[in-house]
Amino acid sequence: MEPSNGYRIDELARRFGLEARGDSTRVIRGVAPLACAEREQLAFLANPRYASELARTRAGVVVLGAEHAGASPSPVLIARDPYLAYARIAALFEHLPAPAPGIHPTAVIAADARVDATASVGPGCVIESGAIIESGARLGPHCTVGPACTVGAQSQLGAHVTLVTRVVLGKRVLIHPGAVLGADGFGLARDEDGWVKVPQLGGVCIGDDCEIGANTTIDRGALEDTVLENDVRLDNQIQIAHNVRIGAHSALAGCAAVAGSAIIGRNCLIGGSAGVLGHLEVTDGVTITAMTLVTHSIREPGVYSSGAPVEENRAWRRNAARMRQLDSMARRIAALEKQLQALTKESNE
Amino acid sequence: MEPSNGYRIDELARRFGLEARGDSTRVIRGVAPLACAEREQLAFLANPRYASELARTRAGVVVLGAEHAGASPSPVLIARDPYLAYARIAALFEHLPAPAPGIHPTAVIAADARVDATASVGPGCVIESGAIIESGARLGPHCTVGPACTVGAQSQLGAHVTLVTRVVLGKRVLIHPGAVLGADGFGLARDEDGWVKVPQLGGVCIGDDCEIGANTTIDRGALEDTVLENDVRLDNQIQIAHNVRIGAHSALAGCAAVAGSAIIGRNCLIGGSAGVLGHLEVTDGVTITAMTLVTHSIREPGVYSSGAPVEENRAWRRNAARMRQLDSMARRIAALEKQLQALTKESNE
Amino acid sequence: MEPSNGYRIDELARRFGLEARGDSTRVIRGVAPLACAEREQLAFLANPRYASELARTRAGVVVLGAEHAGASPSPVLIARDPYLAYARIAALFEHLPAPAPGIHPTAVIAADARVDATASVGPGCVIESGAIIESGARLGPHCTVGPACTVGAQSQLGAHVTLVTRVVLGKRVLIHPGAVLGADGFGLARDEDGWVKVPQLGGVCIGDDCEIGANTTIDRGALEDTVLENDVRLDNQIQIAHNVRIGAHSALAGCAAVAGSAIIGRNCLIGGSAGVLGHLEVTDGVTITAMTLVTHSIREPGVYSSGAPVEENRAWRRNAARMRQLDSMARRIAALEKQLQALTKESNE
Repeated sequence: MEPSNGYRIDELARRFGLEARGDSTRVIRGVAPLACAEREQLAFLANPRYASELARTRAGVVVLGAEHAGASPSPVLIARDPYLAYARIAALFEHLPAPAPGIHPTAVIAADARVDATASVGPGCVIESGAIIESGARLGPHCTVGPACTVGAQSQLGAHVTLVTRVVLGKRVLIHPGAVLGADGFGLARDEDGWVKVPQLGGVCIGDDCEIGANTTIDRGALEDTVLENDVRLDNQIQIAHNVRIGAHSALAGCAAVAGSAIIGRNCLIGGSAGVLGHLEVTDGVTITAMTLVTHSIREPGVYSSGAPVEENRAWRRNAARMRQLDSMARRIAALEKQLQALTKESNE
Repeated sequence: MEPSNGYRIDELARRFGLEARGDSTRVIRGVAPLACAEREQLAFLANPRYASELARTRAGVVVLGAEHAGASPSPVLIARDPYLAYARIAALFEHLPAPAPGIHPTAVIAADARVDATASVGPGCVIESGAIIESGARLGPHCTVGPACTVGAQSQLGAHVTLVTRVVLGKRVLIHPGAVLGADGFGLARDEDGWVKVPQLGGVCIGDDCEIGANTTIDRGALEDTVLENDVRLDNQIQIAHNVRIGAHSALAGCAAVAGSAIIGRNCLIGGSAGVLGHLEVTDGVTITAMTLVTHSIREPGVYSSGAPVEENRAWRRNAARMRQLDSMARRIAALEKQLQALTKESNE
Repeated sequence: MEPSNGYRIDELARRFGLEARGDSTRVIRGVAPLACAEREQLAFLANPRYASELARTRAGVVVLGAEHAGASPSPVLIARDPYLAYARIAALFEHLPAPAPGIHPTAVIAADARVDATASVGPGCVIESGAIIESGARLGPHCTVGPACTVGAQSQLGAHVTLVTRVVLGKRVLIHPGAVLGADGFGLARDEDGWVKVPQLGGVCIGDDCEIGANTTIDRGALEDTVLENDVRLDNQIQIAHNVRIGAHSALAGCAAVAGSAIIGRNCLIGGSAGVLGHLEVTDGVTITAMTLVTHSIREPGVYSSGAPVEENRAWRRNAARMRQLDSMARRIAALEKQLQALTKESNE
């Protein structure tokens, strides 16, 4: 963390609408974890798992909920949502280098591509025929923007991002390195000799404020577009198949995969390594836990899971072997109930 | 979809061996989904899930099976396999830009690499010593073709494809952006101080007509090659470990992973996020459903699955806790059966 | 395998501290699998699965354990750990092209970046402001090394490796193509309008001798660093989230994923496609089998698993349906036990 000019605690309270308690004239010049923050640094307490660290903190100020304020040896900033307040404050201390506008001399730009004068195009980028780069967009090294693609205003692409064809990004979209958008969907028909490729004639449409993680892939649609509505957040190494639609404000954790033509609602949370099968619908407000496989449509908001709990391997082997007998076990229980009922009746007669 | 010159329905029927019913003089200029196709567009009905959309379609013609022909308000083209017929027809309406042959001035070509004059090598490509690019091959921007690699005739590499070393591609292979073929297999031996790397001395051999998805990885073999036979189709983000062999016409969906030295037969279908453990064999004609883990060899064709069904989280928690008691539950059932048998015998005496 | 000058068997025995039996004057010029090795090639037998191939081998010499020495038709080299001995010997026969030191003319180097004169920087690399490339480091084509990143001495980066920001690599680190280190961790807070990005102010710290697979991603920390200790080995397509810490000599197989702030001990083995949830601890010496989800901290060394065994699909459907009834089945067993006890008591009175 580089030092910054610093902000007084009472200045932070005012700016972010928080209540300050304790000596609020101290100057804060950075952020740090509760356990190692020092006098000029701000820390936060959001996850109760870390509450025990509060008593020993040396932070200049701690952002926390009212219920923990009394336990802090340092001045505090009280927030209804301490993590949200921290996120906003920490942005003051982030110093991201902003590349100068302009096209790097090693970039290769098609004659009929349009690059706004305020955009920044990094070394080795390739902007193909008909592509559009809007105002303030920033492309890192070696990005490829294919035919009929648009990078919306203020969007940022990390290194090696590929937009293959018919990919339209909204405004302020952030794409991390190695992501591939608009590659062919996996469409195959079968004839007697082998596979016949189904042309993938759609595109990809990414709403404003979406974030797309490193090495994530989003295929273009077979006929219509693959769509992410506004403010969808994808972590790294996620696979979004053709014609998927994901509603606004949904977030997917690393390595999740969504199969073709699945529709995911708004405000959904999909855990890491989870899967959603194709041609089904998940309604708004659904949370799917990590490594769950969604095999049918989910019509009610709520939390959903599948899978078996982790166990010591020998115990697991014994139990897993019984999973193959489950149906038979259920039938044997039913048979026992019937026999016992008969026997009880008999003995009562 | 850009407009094309158009094809009369009866012309399509003749060209693809289909039966036309209704006004077959209409001209078709594109394809579109059943629900939104217009008068000059062709639609298809293959998945019965969408049959209800047929009655309201405005498509110029619908490709479908004979059983649905009567229900169509539009002219139809009757096909035994409507999806296959659609795949072939749609290719008429796909307009892919074909780059001109030649080597982009920013590409870096080793003195002893051989690039056919009809091949196209994009901006920033790096073709290393001894590599061969055959006739009509097309390399997108920033591809790297390492020592002893061959890109077969008419093969196409998207942007940022890396062939590390000893990777030989057949003809008409299609590789999507970000794929890495021929990186070191994960071979490690252990000594007292830590890991010792096992040299990876084999290569990768990819048959004709294979397709390899975006950001998919295929490691080179430890001694012999990792092999994909002809017409193998891999979706995005698949991991194929060293010395795997996959039989002709098999297809793997996104995020599947195959561990070292596994052998997968011909005409297999492996679902998304499924896994196959190492050193085992899956015979021809096996289908593995999504997120299944194949832990032993499969010797009979058929469909195989593992995993637990998705449930509302509280119900899942209750049931999952019992999975740890499964072996004990099975023993208790057996004990109950024994006791009940004894009691029944007693009460009968 | 190219031929090499060759080594006599007794020379190999001496150099690697092995016992030779049989004609040890033969010259070995390469390595090959047991089943197809020829007279001038060395083979090995480590996995008992392949023991049956020993009797028919034509290898010039076989590296194996003492227990198999008698069964070999060829001369042998006896090793306590044949795979380890093979790994060391095979390195003699690996001929990796070593690029000449220097910076390729197409690379783009910031004025204040420091590149050691003995380092090799490939075509199209981009070394940004303040980055450091130490002695003997080798960067393949199109690598990007961002601000405040260091590539340690003798480290090697394959093509298209991206170090985003604040990524520090130790010595002799090997990174395969397409890996992305130091991208933003997935940190999001929620306000009434949508997601608010949590600044990711930490870095990534990779110890000496680590290996990182193709297309693997390691995010930088939110506040402190994401850390791999020395000699950690990651296979392809692994996702390591922000603030994860992995202990020395641990190895993770392909497609594994570790969520934020999880701590994994030393000498752990994590199987392919396994997952570890966030904010938990796995102690030293733990093995996690493939596709297991670790949902709570593991405090004892050992082998751990979750998941259900693969079955023919119809049987699986029957059994999986019962998983939803497991809690009810367990209660029915308990009820049966109680009733049977009452009945037995009654019949004994």
